[in-house]
Amino acid sequence: MNDEHYMQIALNLARTAAGQTSPNPPVGSVVVKDGEILGMGAHLRAGEPHAEVHALNMAGDNAEGATIFVTLEPCSHYGKTPPCADLIIERGIRRAVVAVTDPNEKVAGRGIEKLRKAGIEVELGVMQKDAEAVNAVFFHYTRTKTPYVTMKSAVSFDGKTATRTGDSKWITGEAARLDVHQYRHKHDAILVGAGTVIADNPSLTTRIPHGGKNPIRIVLDRKLRTPLDTKVLNDGQAETWIFTEAGEQDHAPYLEKEQVTVIQLDQLTVEHVLQELGKRNVMSLFVEGGATVNGSFLESRRINQLVTYMAPKLIGGKLSPTSIGGEGFASMAETLSLEITQVEMIGSDLKIVAEPGKDD
Amino acid sequence: MNDEHYMQIALNLARTAAGQTSPNPPVGSVVVKDGEILGMGAHLRAGEPHAEVHALNMAGDNAEGATIFVTLEPCSHYGKTPPCADLIIERGIRRAVVAVTDPNEKVAGRGIEKLRKAGIEVELGVMQKDAEAVNAVFFHYTRTKTPYVTMKSAVSFDGKTATRTGDSKWITGEAARLDVHQYRHKHDAILVGAGTVIADNPSLTTRIPHGGKNPIRIVLDRKLRTPLDTKVLNDGQAETWIFTEAGEQDHAPYLEKEQVTVIQLDQLTVEHVLQELGKRNVMSLFVEGGATVNGSFLESRRINQLVTYMAPKLIGGKLSPTSIGGEGFASMAETLSLEITQVEMIGSDLKIVAEPGKDD
Repeated sequence: MNDEHYMQIALNLARTAAGQTSPNPPVGSVVVKDGEILGMGAHLRAGEPHAEVHALNMAGDNAEGATIFVTLEPCSHYGKTPPCADLIIERGIRRAVVAVTDPNEKVAGRGIEKLRKAGIEVELGVMQKDAEAVNAVFFHYTRTKTPYVTMKSAVSFDGKTATRTGDSKWITGEAARLDVHQYRHKHDAILVGAGTVIADNPSLTTRIPHGGKNPIRIVLDRKLRTPLDTKVLNDGQAETWIFTEAGEQDHAPYLEKEQVTVIQLDQLTVEHVLQELGKRNVMSLFVEGGATVNGSFLESRRINQLVTYMAPKLIGGKLSPTSIGGEGFASMAETLSLEITQVEMIGSDLKIVAEPGKDD
Repeated sequence: MNDEHYMQIALNLARTAAGQTSPNPPVGSVVVKDGEILGMGAHLRAGEPHAEVHALNMAGDNAEGATIFVTLEPCSHYGKTPPCADLIIERGIRRAVVAVTDPNEKVAGRGIEKLRKAGIEVELGVMQKDAEAVNAVFFHYTRTKTPYVTMKSAVSFDGKTATRTGDSKWITGEAARLDVHQYRHKHDAILVGAGTVIADNPSLTTRIPHGGKNPIRIVLDRKLRTPLDTKVLNDGQAETWIFTEAGEQDHAPYLEKEQVTVIQLDQLTVEHVLQELGKRNVMSLFVEGGATVNGSFLESRRINQLVTYMAPKLIGGKLSPTSIGGEGFASMAETLSLEITQVEMIGSDLKIVAEPGKDD
């Protein structure tokens, strides 16, 4: 068994915890000696032990002389828990295999340095691309201080999100809709425009069997048009943040509601909203907007991932809405290039995942 | 090896000839004795020998006492070639395995009857569903006397066929565009609206390496707006049929062109066009229309197959055109239900094939 084999196991452990570790990244770790796995673990939740701690605890005294595999550079600083690099040294680990360095400025190579200074052999960059993909949200947020944006659409085979009269219940089947809730569970926040709240009065909560984490509900509402009797303002299921340009004099009726925050921006642009969300520790944003909101995200080129559910139905109609409206690009040269990364049938619908093409 | 094994081979032979046998269906046949394949063949072109003839000729005298597998009931009548049922009897075949009866009223069970009367054991219905799929065009045409309609679209990830300014060169990549030409090769006719001819001046010919068959070019042109200098009227690469409501007094400049036919209908509806094409022996129609023409086909519910190439690009825009325009359906209940039958990557584009859902 080579390093890639054990790193793959560590990556799978990390994937298991994806979406429940915010603001920390999901990390996996495996401790191996003489071809035998002695311990394994994943970081499960912010404030709780890191992956390395679980794996080393499981290995116990046997960790001495072993190799540790970690999907992200071990931390070197005192945060909510003591530095993992210290623990690795303490337990007598002989060799550390690390997929990628931690971009967090508090770490940024210092963990690796600490291990090497203690005489531990460090192998860096094993399955780095996969590790970055597992931690895409974390890397994006750490680098840009703004959330990683996933845009979801549910469309007919001919690309419509509703009929010309606005009927859209339901385009996709039950299995696809359940899949959407898995995404809500994994995101810090969910975003819609006031138009969607007015038209559909959605709850925007996570409804999956055995529970699920509700994302913060973000409503873009330039003129504070959100009706006061809507679910997002009254059901108390999750926080609701309303982004608006409207001045303080109009905030009062919203602030009387529980768990409702009004955030006033000079200009309600995608860029400003993302900056503000970043400051408020929102690392991942699930955009379930209508055509106009989605159009704004496209025009600002602020989309990190697209998840589209295509239903086997034809709606037709020149005036039927599509997933991305707004003005759109004028020429093919300006369009946003993507790479299709996942295609699968979910029930009778087709799920297609894509990401903006890499620069190289 | 069971009957399905050999029928699968026969079906693969039939598929090989699909698209080049019109107005006949593609058919495959295998002759087997004691687990050994003695002969195989496919019907390759109208007027040439049927599949059974090739397979029996290959088997020669060894065919005596053998089993013949055929994807379609052997013919019982004298057409351009003598009846295959007679030949099967003559060659001393002991058993015949047939996938499906021939819906053609000149056969319709008479081939099977002839074999049984001659003492040949006949097994009917082996892999019938697959055989009907291979011959979908033939079965549809024979039953309805109108062509089987395949609608092609090339769209962006957000369902647009062009930018708001009409730029569409190119949405999909070279591999997908080559795949489109394979469809042209396999269809009797290709259909567009006059709007597409005016906007793009396309040649609508088949351009694949090592040649290809050009489909008849059908232009729907209610008011005879097709410019007289367009490729479809002048390049002489294939026949061009213009369907119009305009009266004879306006036909003359078009009729001066070679290989151009003007067909006047009282009402230029999809239904009337398909009836007329059926009368003129067009069994398969490839619709490459714009949004309006595609909308007419959807509203008349006259689509048998959809082929969509989805490119990894985002165009956006409320006013950017989509694949199917027209009025469209008002409610989700009216929409046309499909079944997705094929999904594959072609280059960096996604190809998705769907068919209207079965009634059952």
